[in-house]
Amino acid sequence: MSDAVGRLVRQIQFIAECDKLKEIFRQTINTQSRRAENDAEHSWHLCLCVIVLAEHANVPTLDVLRVLKMVILHDLVEIDAGDTFAYDVAAMVGQHEREAIAADRIFGLLPADQAQDFRALWDEFEEKKTPEAKFAAAVDRFQPMLLNCLTQGDAWARHGVTHDRVVARNCHIADGSATLWRHAEQLLNEVVAAGHLRKI
Amino acid sequence: MSDAVGRLVRQIQFIAECDKLKEIFRQTINTQSRRAENDAEHSWHLCLCVIVLAEHANVPTLDVLRVLKMVILHDLVEIDAGDTFAYDVAAMVGQHEREAIAADRIFGLLPADQAQDFRALWDEFEEKKTPEAKFAAAVDRFQPMLLNCLTQGDAWARHGVTHDRVVARNCHIADGSATLWRHAEQLLNEVVAAGHLRKI
Repeated sequence: MSDAVGRLVRQIQFIAECDKLKEIFRQTINTQSRRAENDAEHSWHLCLCVIVLAEHANVPTLDVLRVLKMVILHDLVEIDAGDTFAYDVAAMVGQHEREAIAADRIFGLLPADQAQDFRALWDEFEEKKTPEAKFAAAVDRFQPMLLNCLTQGDAWARHGVTHDRVVARNCHIADGSATLWRHAEQLLNEVVAAGHLRKI
Repeated sequence: MSDAVGRLVRQIQFIAECDKLKEIFRQTINTQSRRAENDAEHSWHLCLCVIVLAEHANVPTLDVLRVLKMVILHDLVEIDAGDTFAYDVAAMVGQHEREAIAADRIFGLLPADQAQDFRALWDEFEEKKTPEAKFAAAVDRFQPMLLNCLTQGDAWARHGVTHDRVVARNCHIADGSATLWRHAEQLLNEVVAAGHLRKI
């Protein structure tokens, strides 16, 4: 097998392995069937949010391609590490370490240069320092919040999550898009008024 | 409501409507659970294929961002028009017309400038003339073919699809990536040799 063919074989093995993302289920439910959303669906929905909402980023020069790459890849580590619910403080202990080990294995399936590129994108996403990572993280918070609003706060109610905790987690949307966070705050107020999110 | 807020409200309504893509099921099955794949999962998997395989495109100057936008959006019309199995010749009659009506409604939910942009991307994808559309179409054929290979030809067997028809449909992968099609042909030969795809 030539080097070029070997490279393509590794890439296709990676694509096949990543099919497992479709079986990693989240706490949020979809609006229609009301079954748990999986990470592949979530990642696609984030891609859609990025191309629709990029104009609302805090910076006018957002590199949309890099944001898309981050959201396409951001949850692959959960194939090994599983999904951690955003309000489960106990489960979050050691989360980053587990996910970093998963990143080593999963991105390591790729040819070395690409493994390094993808790992750098995942690290950038996790560190949330660049405008691109901040915007990717903003849609990663906004999309589940929106699904929760559209499903009468289903996941919040099941886990006893109150308005103050939703605000504490999601206010970081403003780091990527102040406009989007202003609107999100209003959505949360409507859900509280409708009795679907408890205020303490 | 100001124009700017009205714009964001329309964008979010579009994002919410598109949640329905998660309920449009395809003939291909996923490798792990072996349940039918849905269009949202498929669209995410295409995004992954694009960023992993872009280097194999026939043209060295591929606009990867535009390819990603196309694959993110390409199946939204199926929210209204449903999925059409690639080997169901009868169901394919009138498919483009049904999907064009769906495109009018679904992209029409967005602010006018964005509706026009997204519709242009969908038209470009459908016409398969630009290098970006050809590459997007190539991964849109390769990914289901790969899943079929990885699931012992499940969807092909259920529908009595033979090797010649798989080749006739998928040889257009070469229009986007000759390298990928050469490898795909070899995968198909392996599946035939394993007895998972019938040759007549």
